[in-house]
Amino acid sequence: MPMIQVNVLAGHTAEEKRKFVADIARVTAEDFNVPMDKIWIQLIEMPHDEFAVGGKFISETRP
Amino acid sequence: MPMIQVNVLAGHTAEEKRKFVADIARVTAEDFNVPMDKIWIQLIEMPHDEFAVGGKFISETRP
Amino acid sequence: MPMIQVNVLAGHTAEEKRKFVADIARVTAEDFNVPMDKIWIQLIEMPHDEFAVGGKFISETRP
Amino acid sequence: MPMIQVNVLAGHTAEEKRKFVADIARVTAEDFNVPMDKIWIQLIEMPHDEFAVGGKFISETRP
Amino acid sequence: MPMIQVNVLAGHTAEEKRKFVADIARVTAEDFNVPMDKIWIQLIEMPHDEFAVGGKFISETRP
Amino acid sequence: MPMIQVNVLAGHTAEEKRKFVADIARVTAEDFNVPMDKIWIQLIEMPHDEFAVGGKFISETRP
Repeated sequence: MPMIQVNVLAGHTAEEKRKFVADIARVTAEDFNVPMDKIWIQLIEMPHDEFAVGGKFISETRP
Repeated sequence: MPMIQVNVLAGHTAEEKRKFVADIARVTAEDFNVPMDKIWIQLIEMPHDEFAVGGKFISETRP
Repeated sequence: MPMIQVNVLAGHTAEEKRKFVADIARVTAEDFNVPMDKIWIQLIEMPHDEFAVGGKFISETRP
Repeated sequence: MPMIQVNVLAGHTAEEKRKFVADIARVTAEDFNVPMDKIWIQLIEMPHDEFAVGGKFISETRP
Repeated sequence: MPMIQVNVLAGHTAEEKRKFVADIARVTAEDFNVPMDKIWIQLIEMPHDEFAVGGKFISETRP
Repeated sequence: MPMIQVNVLAGHTAEEKRKFVADIARVTAEDFNVPMDKIWIQLIEMPHDEFAVGGKFISETRP
C-alpha cells in the first residue's frame, strides 16, 4: 500500500502530470511488486510564493 | 498533543466536515486520554486532478 | 480514499492503538460515506525528544 | 538537506512571510551548519475552515 | 525542486529500495524536465503495526 | 497554531537539536506574533539510507 506524495513547483501541464503519475505508479508496481490499485499518489503543485530555497521564495528569485 | 492530518477527496459539505472533525477529536480524546484543546486536525480536500490511484487521476476515471 | 496521518506522543499500548484506528476508521466511513477498505491510517508515535512545544522538547519538560 | 514544512493559519502578509522564511533558513544554516541553498522551506497557509482545534474549525470559533 | 515522500510497508531489500529511488528520480527528471540533483526523495518503510487499512493494522491482518 | 515539521539528515547532537527548536520557536513567535505554547515542532532525523538526492541514497554517496 504505497502512499506517494509529490510536491513540485507549479507550472506543469495536465498532460505532463498525467504521464508523471502513470510512470511513477508503473515503476512502483514493478520495483516493489504491488498491485496498481494499491498505489496512491498525491501530486501537489506549489505556488512560487509558497516554496523557498535558501530563505527566499521562488517568486522573489524568479520575478 | 496529537496532530492529525486528513486528506480526503473534494466533494463534502461544510456540515459533513464539521461533524467529522468533532467526531475525530472526541474519539482521540477518549482513546488516548488527551485534553480536547491539545488535538489539532488539518482536513485537506484533494481536487480530483491532484490524487491518483493506479497511475490515473480521479478526474480521469470519474469524468 | 481518505489518507489519515496521526502523530501522537509515544507511550500508548498496542491495545489503545488498535482501538483508536478502529474508531477513526468507523467514524470516517460513517461521516464521509466511504468503504472501510479505502481508509488508510498511518499512526506514528513520536519519541519525546523529537517533538517540541514552545521551543522545548517534551523530554526536556517531562524529565 | 533540511526540508521544512510549516503550516500556519492564513492571514499573514507577503512581507511577514518573506521575513519568516529568511529567518528560518538563517537559523537552520547556523544551528545545523548546512549551506543555505540546501535548505528547502514550504510555507502553507491553512484556511480557517481547514484547521480544527478541539474538534472545531477556526472558522467556527472565530466567526 | 520536487520533494517526493514515499511511505511503503516495511519488508523490502536495500537493493529494491536503491533501484526504486533511482527509477523514481529518472522518471521525475524526464517528465518534469528538472535536473537530477534537485530531486529529493524520502523513502519511509512503515512498520506493520503502524499502518492500518479499514481500521485494522497490517500486523493484525497478516499475523 | 503553527505546525512545523523538519526533516534533517541524522547526525546532530541533542544540544544542537535543542538549540534549533528553541531558535525556530522564537523566530516563529516573533515573525508571526503567536504565543510560544501554540508552536509545535516535529524534528525528524532521517537515516542516510532513507533519503536520496538525484536517485541515490546519502548512504550510497557518503559511504
